[in-house]
Amino acid sequence: MGSTQVNELGEIETPILLTSTLAVPRTADAVIDYMLSLPGNEDVRSINPVVGETNDGTLNDIRGRHITSADVANAIRNATGGPVEEGAVGAGTGTIAFGFKGGIGTSSRKLPTTLGGHTVGVLVQTNFGGILTINGAPVGKELGQYYLKDQVEPAQRGSCMIVIATDAPLDSRNLKRLAARAMLGLGRTGSAASNGSGDYAIAFSTIRQSASLLSNDAMSPLFEAVIEATEEAIYNSLFRAQTTTGRGRTIEALPLEKTIEILRRYRAIR
Amino acid sequence: MGSTQVNELGEIETPILLTSTLAVPRTADAVIDYMLSLPGNEDVRSINPVVGETNDGTLNDIRGRHITSADVANAIRNATGGPVEEGAVGAGTGTIAFGFKGGIGTSSRKLPTTLGGHTVGVLVQTNFGGILTINGAPVGKELGQYYLKDQVEPAQRGSCMIVIATDAPLDSRNLKRLAARAMLGLGRTGSAASNGSGDYAIAFSTIRQSASLLSNDAMSPLFEAVIEATEEAIYNSLFRAQTTTGRGRTIEALPLEKTIEILRRYRAIR
Amino acid sequence: MGSTQVNELGEIETPILLTSTLAVPRTADAVIDYMLSLPGNEDVRSINPVVGETNDGTLNDIRGRHITSADVANAIRNATGGPVEEGAVGAGTGTIAFGFKGGIGTSSRKLPTTLGGHTVGVLVQTNFGGILTINGAPVGKELGQYYLKDQVEPAQRGSCMIVIATDAPLDSRNLKRLAARAMLGLGRTGSAASNGSGDYAIAFSTIRQSASLLSNDAMSPLFEAVIEATEEAIYNSLFRAQTTTGRGRTIEALPLEKTIEILRRYRAIR
Amino acid sequence: MGSTQVNELGEIETPILLTSTLAVPRTADAVIDYMLSLPGNEDVRSINPVVGETNDGTLNDIRGRHITSADVANAIRNATGGPVEEGAVGAGTGTIAFGFKGGIGTSSRKLPTTLGGHTVGVLVQTNFGGILTINGAPVGKELGQYYLKDQVEPAQRGSCMIVIATDAPLDSRNLKRLAARAMLGLGRTGSAASNGSGDYAIAFSTIRQSASLLSNDAMSPLFEAVIEATEEAIYNSLFRAQTTTGRGRTIEALPLEKTIEILRRYRAIR
Repeated sequence: MGSTQVNELGEIETPILLTSTLAVPRTADAVIDYMLSLPGNEDVRSINPVVGETNDGTLNDIRGRHITSADVANAIRNATGGPVEEGAVGAGTGTIAFGFKGGIGTSSRKLPTTLGGHTVGVLVQTNFGGILTINGAPVGKELGQYYLKDQVEPAQRGSCMIVIATDAPLDSRNLKRLAARAMLGLGRTGSAASNGSGDYAIAFSTIRQSASLLSNDAMSPLFEAVIEATEEAIYNSLFRAQTTTGRGRTIEALPLEKTIEILRRYRAIR
Repeated sequence: MGSTQVNELGEIETPILLTSTLAVPRTADAVIDYMLSLPGNEDVRSINPVVGETNDGTLNDIRGRHITSADVANAIRNATGGPVEEGAVGAGTGTIAFGFKGGIGTSSRKLPTTLGGHTVGVLVQTNFGGILTINGAPVGKELGQYYLKDQVEPAQRGSCMIVIATDAPLDSRNLKRLAARAMLGLGRTGSAASNGSGDYAIAFSTIRQSASLLSNDAMSPLFEAVIEATEEAIYNSLFRAQTTTGRGRTIEALPLEKTIEILRRYRAIR
Repeated sequence: MGSTQVNELGEIETPILLTSTLAVPRTADAVIDYMLSLPGNEDVRSINPVVGETNDGTLNDIRGRHITSADVANAIRNATGGPVEEGAVGAGTGTIAFGFKGGIGTSSRKLPTTLGGHTVGVLVQTNFGGILTINGAPVGKELGQYYLKDQVEPAQRGSCMIVIATDAPLDSRNLKRLAARAMLGLGRTGSAASNGSGDYAIAFSTIRQSASLLSNDAMSPLFEAVIEATEEAIYNSLFRAQTTTGRGRTIEALPLEKTIEILRRYRAIR
Repeated sequence: MGSTQVNELGEIETPILLTSTLAVPRTADAVIDYMLSLPGNEDVRSINPVVGETNDGTLNDIRGRHITSADVANAIRNATGGPVEEGAVGAGTGTIAFGFKGGIGTSSRKLPTTLGGHTVGVLVQTNFGGILTINGAPVGKELGQYYLKDQVEPAQRGSCMIVIATDAPLDSRNLKRLAARAMLGLGRTGSAASNGSGDYAIAFSTIRQSASLLSNDAMSPLFEAVIEATEEAIYNSLFRAQTTTGRGRTIEALPLEKTIEILRRYRAIR
């Protein structure tokens, strides 16, 4: 929600919130509550909330839309710098990825000074199907996740929401290009991008777009950074997620010891 | 709201609602309430509400978001065939167009049987600036609406939301082309498409997309129909709107007698 | 031709050429000849020619593709500042608009200093159908051009190619928005945007994108400028075109005296 | 070249040709020669050639544009069913991928009857950078291809052209979705999607779009098929390419024996 105006005006007016599909309106309304209540915003009469979502209806009582305006205000007010909570938290509480418990994951890359020194950070909400590959190792297949003959599992459906932040001074065109490259990182993990999949990436710059925008020539290292950080953020969402039960169903976390053993066997780690 | 999934899947899952900018989330949440409550939808766990908006903050207490779930349910349940209420009603209650009171307008064209016999209906929510031209006559200018030297009026800003329905069996590509042509009708009225303008047109077919889609060759008459109907719907939104007062401000309706006199003088009507 | 890379990189590497549909490749190849031959380009190994077109196959021996590399080089080398040749010249030699002889037209607007002082110039290649309206007056209809009952004339098909130049420092997003507004000017003239219509507008800035790009807030006057200049450029393409015969067919120029009489009658001019 | 009309009309009017960047116009002109010369096309006055390209200027005398109308006519006339020539052939003669000799590659997937039984075929022209991963194994890295500290190699730039054919009856929206999924297969190979990269995928259906288009629900297996086939086609372009010398430079083919050894070591093959 909010993407049409972002595309037209190249501006993000609010914090970006992630939530469950049916909770998007209540979350957006709460963002408006929050923005209207900020000192100095007494005369603001237009706000375009940007809210992303994936559908966590398997584990979550999604029809209940149990999000309140206070939840959203707290989420915004308590946001801090430093390490980001990952796994089955926030909008990732009920998500499923590659048949395992998914969630929130994050990763970043800092370019060397000779390539500009900029940072690219990626945060993902993983809720999609496919056969998990980690650093090239066929972890999902070894763990018994594979396509049955003549069948593509409905449970494998879903999407990935990707938020990309950078301190590189980029215009909206290069931010869109950056966002498009996230799909290559998603591809590396084994995502199936099934029907219904609204894999969606949005990128923003923390630098006010004034003085000196980066030229096209400076983009390649940023593209590589976003591909790598997206891949890693997806892994992190799985590594940190706990086995979760909801609506009488239990989705297992990725078994870490077995996974490590598989990664060693395939020399994906040492 | 809802356009990203409509573009991806080519499907509209809910009634299309129009409202005030800041009331979009509450309206969308109410659409979800309504859809979830429908018999047979007990297991539905995904809904993509489609909600359009324009900013009526000049006349409306937009920050108050005075829309309730009951309002939305009533709007949907009480929708009927036959003549459509126009002017300062519904989502058009607080809108302003060309400096006059805007609102909801509608118009349609039915093609002759030899050209397929299909109908194109257009409904607009008018809330934008520009110097009004009606059927070619410079009505706005004659009524004293013109650009001051060195000035483009901020009050002239805003946008037009356009909904197009047809019983022609069109695929999503030709529906998008149909929607794009609405902009030519908007242009004929003198719209300025100012910054911030999210002029947005969405088209849908009432025919289930099965048997025999219309070919490209059959599109030209439909394009002409949507251009004409959009132009006329915009005029109708003005013709039917009443002078309206809100937040201590009064926006005058288009003065019909003077307008008719101007139209006669310019031979735009006889 | 060339638009995919322009959209990706936001850069135009060559002069923009307009020609006849089937002559696009030869024109593009000639642009490459020209660019490769420029001093300093001895090591250039990538060029993205930008070439626009409309289909002039009614009057022109379009299958013959009678354009040579020398023609293109001469067109580029002989380009000058000052008044632009209009009417049935260059890529407009064989085009038809509103049933009359179309061609090349141009117009511009210079904003007052208080609104930034920037200039917007528009050049059009008119080759499309519809019922001509000039400054609101139904010129086409009065001259006997109207849709026959149950018929949309095939001869009315075609498209309009629109090139927009400005010295306003705009990024690619705002240049695209500027180009999109040209469609509103096209709408004012009575264009039918029929099937097959590849109405296409491209905008570029003559200012190297460095220091201080214009903000969104400064766009509204530029939007109004491009709408007005596009409308006027289309009229100019008709006003300056001569009756033209080709392939045994004659397309009449717009009869200026009658047109002026109609414009007076409808008070479109005084 | 040709994509704007394909997007507007959803129709491909000619064979799709792949070539070298600067040879696009001559190739397109030759396609027009060919199409105009076909029996029955004597009155055709509009053709939209679809031509893709990558920049092979390192090995190829790209400025010379050594393609003739006869070359193109022969390529079209000699096209046959059955196995497709791969490696350093045709438009792949001079391309470079992952620092090794790239070229043309192809692969396909046939869905089981229970999933519709449709076939998806992919043909790629590989000319891009990145660190090659094959079936998860870090082949490029093991062969000494990696990013130098503080450096992203200019030689690593380029793009991948992807053509997708299917006998599934899909409308243009679902064909675009299919094409978008090819990027996930590209991601699996280690592509860097560097600046300048015009990675471009086009999908078409061999079924005339009439009776019964596939629904969205049937798309997931096709998406998985295009991801897998794209990944494999890229590998095939490398496996079949020969070491090639041009303009005094030699680009080595992927060393197959070493590659097989690496794949075994990483258990990517048995």
